[in-house]
Amino acid sequence: MSGLTYRGAGVDVSRAEDALTRVRERIALTKRPEVLGGIGGFGGLFRLGAYRDPVLVATADGVGTKLELARLLGRHEGVGTDLVHHCVNDALAMGADPLFFLDYFSTGRLDPSVFARVVGAMADACAAHGCALLGGETAEMPGMYADGTYDLAGFLVGVVERDAVLDPAAVREGDALVGLPSSGLHTNGYTLARAIVARVARADGLDVLDVLSAPRPELRGASLGDALLATHRSYLDEVRALRADAGLRSIAHLTGGGWEGNLPRALPDGLGALVDRATWTVPPLFRLLAEMGGVREEERWDTWNMGIGLVAVVAAEDARAALRALPDAILLGRIERASGARRVRWA
Amino acid sequence: MSGLTYRGAGVDVSRAEDALTRVRERIALTKRPEVLGGIGGFGGLFRLGAYRDPVLVATADGVGTKLELARLLGRHEGVGTDLVHHCVNDALAMGADPLFFLDYFSTGRLDPSVFARVVGAMADACAAHGCALLGGETAEMPGMYADGTYDLAGFLVGVVERDAVLDPAAVREGDALVGLPSSGLHTNGYTLARAIVARVARADGLDVLDVLSAPRPELRGASLGDALLATHRSYLDEVRALRADAGLRSIAHLTGGGWEGNLPRALPDGLGALVDRATWTVPPLFRLLAEMGGVREEERWDTWNMGIGLVAVVAAEDARAALRALPDAILLGRIERASGARRVRWA
Repeated sequence: MSGLTYRGAGVDVSRAEDALTRVRERIALTKRPEVLGGIGGFGGLFRLGAYRDPVLVATADGVGTKLELARLLGRHEGVGTDLVHHCVNDALAMGADPLFFLDYFSTGRLDPSVFARVVGAMADACAAHGCALLGGETAEMPGMYADGTYDLAGFLVGVVERDAVLDPAAVREGDALVGLPSSGLHTNGYTLARAIVARVARADGLDVLDVLSAPRPELRGASLGDALLATHRSYLDEVRALRADAGLRSIAHLTGGGWEGNLPRALPDGLGALVDRATWTVPPLFRLLAEMGGVREEERWDTWNMGIGLVAVVAAEDARAALRALPDAILLGRIERASGARRVRWA
Repeated sequence: MSGLTYRGAGVDVSRAEDALTRVRERIALTKRPEVLGGIGGFGGLFRLGAYRDPVLVATADGVGTKLELARLLGRHEGVGTDLVHHCVNDALAMGADPLFFLDYFSTGRLDPSVFARVVGAMADACAAHGCALLGGETAEMPGMYADGTYDLAGFLVGVVERDAVLDPAAVREGDALVGLPSSGLHTNGYTLARAIVARVARADGLDVLDVLSAPRPELRGASLGDALLATHRSYLDEVRALRADAGLRSIAHLTGGGWEGNLPRALPDGLGALVDRATWTVPPLFRLLAEMGGVREEERWDTWNMGIGLVAVVAAEDARAALRALPDAILLGRIERASGARRVRWA
């Protein structure tokens, strides 16, 4: 028998180096003055600097099966951006500004071009948020992933002064709920969306790609694929404006679990949210998917964000200032006492 | 058509809750006084406390295809421990002590029992290292993973005072190289090991499980599976002892890329390592695998750690103190000038 090699077994370290070389300059653009040293250490170094009583905020997120859509449609940039934005919003929900981000990219056989598109987009999103891309892990695991598939995880650390941590305990009955529109499903509920697309394809004798690519009048001529791959919106600027101008109490980032799964996380025990669904129009993508899949009303709201990506709780007297600071914000409703298992009540 | 549901599409949020419930108590045991709030926030909160000039050290790691072996052999605990230890060692290599850890667990259909074994072991390893398990993401992605497979990523943040960051620039010609034994492959080179096992199985008409489970006289009766799943050793206590007792200059954690891929990362340009391989005995697992696979000499050392998991560079005059502080440490060699592409030279 001839001798086995690591490369022959499917892991090619030079392929990983090639992939990294393609994004090195874009990663360098994310460098903040606090970052010490270059790429190549066993860990990334970030000099924290002067805070009175710093609280670190850490989040871990993935993109879910939006990855599968990106792969099917050959559009890989978006998921890198999605991942950074998801993490940034989670940090914002705790009151923190992002400091640095690390990624995990895992696949069967590394395609340097796909890697560069995904991780390059992450780097660009980090740079746009003043967040250092401080490190990451690229794993080539032959046999564990189907051809062309990959998985992504993102980790972000932010910082906030202790007295500025957003704490659900600050929320009071009568506080106002201010919503910010989502750009689509964000990174949540894609398995349901994909099941709907697959069933429609089967029923109509079409390929899934046909269903995803057809222009839809309901989407003003855009395709389902376009609408489903819309980038997870980041709310950094909006939350900064709220912090400056309005009595911000807490924030819910509407992701996995939809409304009931997330809004209560920003509320103390005993309080719930009264939300008037007439205050905004559910975007056509959600209605189209729900109709195509016959998805029940409650299931829709427990799975998807239905057009609102982030909900801020502000003192009632500050609601007007919040709406003034944020041109596309919507006054959704208010905080009320709640005792049941479900804490989001629809007006 | 009947209506589609998220659960029907393969994502069951209650399954994730069940899984989390099984490990909640073990996660609670990792809580440090600096951790604020409980599970359920959009991000984990860690109050940093008093440092003069804190530098955060962040690492992201995976377990690679050791996961496949764990799955094949139904032994899931180890990989959780492996992941934490891998991250801890990377932080140690920069001079940092661990503060907190987050995990990413991704699978097609969540098996709460497997999840509890993996994440429970992570929690135990975190607790043993005084490291908070601060958060994580559990992703159920139907169709993206083969039945029973899962992927893991870990993310760890540590802290070190700026003047205690380990910097390769401190290394001088003539410094001593002190090695600490590994417990096996750690989390690196498993794709090559698995290819060897698969080829032997094919050649002998056996099942891979038979090859992995057979007692081996070379391993004193242990099986290849046992030896391959040995836990990635953590060097926290040893590195702390080195910091206290010896003039520690820098550290290399020998992982992906073996000796040449890692030892130079702890050295400045222009210096290399002269290593005397007669100073320790390569453990039988490495010899057995290399012989079974006909793996060339250079390939072995460029892929595996060959019995040494961590190399510390200490001032020559401190080598004796280092060896005294660490009962199983080995004086491997010394730092020399180097100009070629390869910077590890074998004596």
